[in-house]
Amino acid sequence: MANQPILLDYWPSMFGMRARVALREKGVEFEYREEDFKNKSPLLLQSNPVHKKIPVLIHNGKPVCESLNVVQYVDEAWTDKNSFFPSDPYGRAQARFWADFVDKKVTESQFKIWGKKGEEHEEGKKEFIEALKILESELGDKPYFGGDTFGYVDISFITFYCWFQAYEKFGNISIEPECPKLIAWGKRCMEKESVSKSLADSEKIVGYVAEFRKNNL
Amino acid sequence: MANQPILLDYWPSMFGMRARVALREKGVEFEYREEDFKNKSPLLLQSNPVHKKIPVLIHNGKPVCESLNVVQYVDEAWTDKNSFFPSDPYGRAQARFWADFVDKKVTESQFKIWGKKGEEHEEGKKEFIEALKILESELGDKPYFGGDTFGYVDISFITFYCWFQAYEKFGNISIEPECPKLIAWGKRCMEKESVSKSLADSEKIVGYVAEFRKNNL
Repeated sequence: MANQPILLDYWPSMFGMRARVALREKGVEFEYREEDFKNKSPLLLQSNPVHKKIPVLIHNGKPVCESLNVVQYVDEAWTDKNSFFPSDPYGRAQARFWADFVDKKVTESQFKIWGKKGEEHEEGKKEFIEALKILESELGDKPYFGGDTFGYVDISFITFYCWFQAYEKFGNISIEPECPKLIAWGKRCMEKESVSKSLADSEKIVGYVAEFRKNNL
Repeated sequence: MANQPILLDYWPSMFGMRARVALREKGVEFEYREEDFKNKSPLLLQSNPVHKKIPVLIHNGKPVCESLNVVQYVDEAWTDKNSFFPSDPYGRAQARFWADFVDKKVTESQFKIWGKKGEEHEEGKKEFIEALKILESELGDKPYFGGDTFGYVDISFITFYCWFQAYEKFGNISIEPECPKLIAWGKRCMEKESVSKSLADSEKIVGYVAEFRKNNL
């Protein structure tokens, strides 16, 4: 299909997975193109000259970059299915706030757990659990962050779920006793095909991280 | 007025200024409350328990936090004036991309210029000018980042303009020769009352920075 969007992605990326989940939630067929991040394709470099990062969604020949931006674009470009956002401005602001929280507080701390050593590693474990507890409290007894429906915050955060096993193994932490509601939420989200088809296998992530650590730490 | 929004803010903050500009662009009357960032008010701590930062916009008793989030909320909550965004999904995605670029590439580099010494200071100067040149190229010959109208990217970035004098003084750099179009754009934006009433006086910012450096560097 001429109009079928192309997703430039990389399999273990929780940011790439956000784009996959969003597209599948909207029932959009897309062409998945795996990037080699040591040898980025000319199309990636030309589509995202500023950051040179996946995910990039190319739709009607035009590139959309940065994962949360891609998710919002997908929401606004395919309007035949339900929006990822509530309709009221305050609810929308709250959803953006929490997705931004994931980017600011989860992204860096989780990387420190598996990608750093010593003091930074210990700091990462502490910051990560703190961030998770705040998210656990925000989720509360709702089935999803979006309330009764799977929405923008769910898409932004669920893609870290398939990394939890790696965080536990390499951080020597146990997430479920600290955040049982988040684990139940993760399992609930995994029942959705848009999620289960988009997230990487947890065992494969553990292998990916082991390889990364062998080469970099 | 019972419904008049309250803005918790701090005068030299380029993030707080974004909220001011957005509210004034929409013609919204608001109560400005200056925060003392060494002694934050109970209202601030209660309204933004996660980040404990200004700006916070309290509207109908409910707090909206994080500056770009506030700007988007203002856009969606007061719809009687033109939107800050284009109507097409791609144009909206581009606007969000560039505002995010400002947050990722300008915010940190400008701080290194006036708030750091040595290697970090030098790094900041280089990164700041690089980011500005990318923005200069994105602006091109358009009057505003929003095209013919002052929009979301303009609001996100113009608030740094009143800091330019401080960057030049404490970074020993000269911005206009590198980015003449950005300077012309800054002057053009300052002709708007929403901007000129909201931005701090450049000389006062220089004094603020001098004081900061005396106490911290």
